[in-house]
Amino acid sequence: MPSEVRIIGLDGVGELRPGDDLVPVILNSLTVSGVSLERGDITVVTHKVVSKAEGRLLDLKDIEPSSFARQWAASYDKDPAQIEVVLREAKRIARMDRGIIIAETHHGFVCANAGVDASNVAGQDCVCLLPLDPDASARRIQEGLKREAGFDIPVIITDSFGRAWRNGVVNVAIGVAGLEPIVDYRGQDDPYGYQMSVTLMAVADELASAAELAMGKVDQRPVALVRGYAYQPGAGNGGQLVMPPERDLFR
Amino acid sequence: MPSEVRIIGLDGVGELRPGDDLVPVILNSLTVSGVSLERGDITVVTHKVVSKAEGRLLDLKDIEPSSFARQWAASYDKDPAQIEVVLREAKRIARMDRGIIIAETHHGFVCANAGVDASNVAGQDCVCLLPLDPDASARRIQEGLKREAGFDIPVIITDSFGRAWRNGVVNVAIGVAGLEPIVDYRGQDDPYGYQMSVTLMAVADELASAAELAMGKVDQRPVALVRGYAYQPGAGNGGQLVMPPERDLFR
Repeated sequence: MPSEVRIIGLDGVGELRPGDDLVPVILNSLTVSGVSLERGDITVVTHKVVSKAEGRLLDLKDIEPSSFARQWAASYDKDPAQIEVVLREAKRIARMDRGIIIAETHHGFVCANAGVDASNVAGQDCVCLLPLDPDASARRIQEGLKREAGFDIPVIITDSFGRAWRNGVVNVAIGVAGLEPIVDYRGQDDPYGYQMSVTLMAVADELASAAELAMGKVDQRPVALVRGYAYQPGAGNGGQLVMPPERDLFR
Repeated sequence: MPSEVRIIGLDGVGELRPGDDLVPVILNSLTVSGVSLERGDITVVTHKVVSKAEGRLLDLKDIEPSSFARQWAASYDKDPAQIEVVLREAKRIARMDRGIIIAETHHGFVCANAGVDASNVAGQDCVCLLPLDPDASARRIQEGLKREAGFDIPVIITDSFGRAWRNGVVNVAIGVAGLEPIVDYRGQDDPYGYQMSVTLMAVADELASAAELAMGKVDQRPVALVRGYAYQPGAGNGGQLVMPPERDLFR
């Protein structure tokens, strides 16, 4: 029997507003899409709808940029208020060069602009920040879906990250609930005789990337189900996907 | 209508030997799996079977390590012959520290051990190298499948790469034929009002990661079909997924 994994991008999520509860929104999108939750399903949610529901938006008019933010923004034709927000969201700067800021967020993620996205909400120049605690956001959704379904539905919250040395961005997991984000195959042999010496697979990142394929360009479907993947249940979290500083050769 | 992408991991690929033609092997695995090629399918193949079929194996007994390889191997309890092969496969070393070598391959990929995998072929200590030209390998498979199917089937050849700052490895695309590996959404607005300012999506890498989910742990199914993803046909290649040196902040 060939193994099959299905990625189902859900319709009908609609516009989110600060204070909205994502659980009924996701349940409604399942109904609209004619899809029922099944045992083994994983829910993947783009962080933008999570951030929006959690009110993680800032109006750039309310931001007073520092002189450093002003100077850097002027050098690279950027919005100084937006640069100020990026610096505030950063715990550490990995690179700040040629108009690009690669920063470590307070969660520990290293990504462009410390995860700050430009957005335009109802005609206002806003920026959207990462959720304060993406694992907690994932757990809240997981608990809500479990109440409805009667069984556990792991949740992954995603963002699109650039990568060192590679072009383009890919979806990765920033929040995880209900599954082990890293699966350890060390010590096993594959059927072709290769020793699996370095095989901590970041399956939550692969699930996040897979989900993006059904979310459609520019996140037309911010919620997707992954069905048929034999995940490892567990109390994993998004922090497990961050390389510990003491093992990180690229800090 | 929800969008749906299916990832089908094929059975029956079996053991490859140097000189084998992968096209009949893949066609046979389709038959064994009871799956017919359909328009829109993408074939994803783990590089290990490609490398093996192309004879990209070295017996470590035949390798004379340099004194540098010997010294470094001794410091970190590694096989000096294997270190020698890694150095030969490297165009440039990004990091060589704490027993870990992150190197740029002659293709331009930055990855652990310059893509050299330990393997054990019929009791001999061998190493498996990346295909010499993964795009050419992908094109050969694409052409063979097209002859059989009567329509175009894009092909992606994958390897599992570590990432800076993140734990674990994920499948990425190292060879591409028949589709654009990067899709450009710049200038578009998403339905939630976010400006897509930085949205070169590395879809070939996301397809590679998605395929891994159906390949099973330790590559039990080294070939997978992706069905239902509206890829952009094109003459793209794996090199497009490599950050050009002049734009690379992490060289």
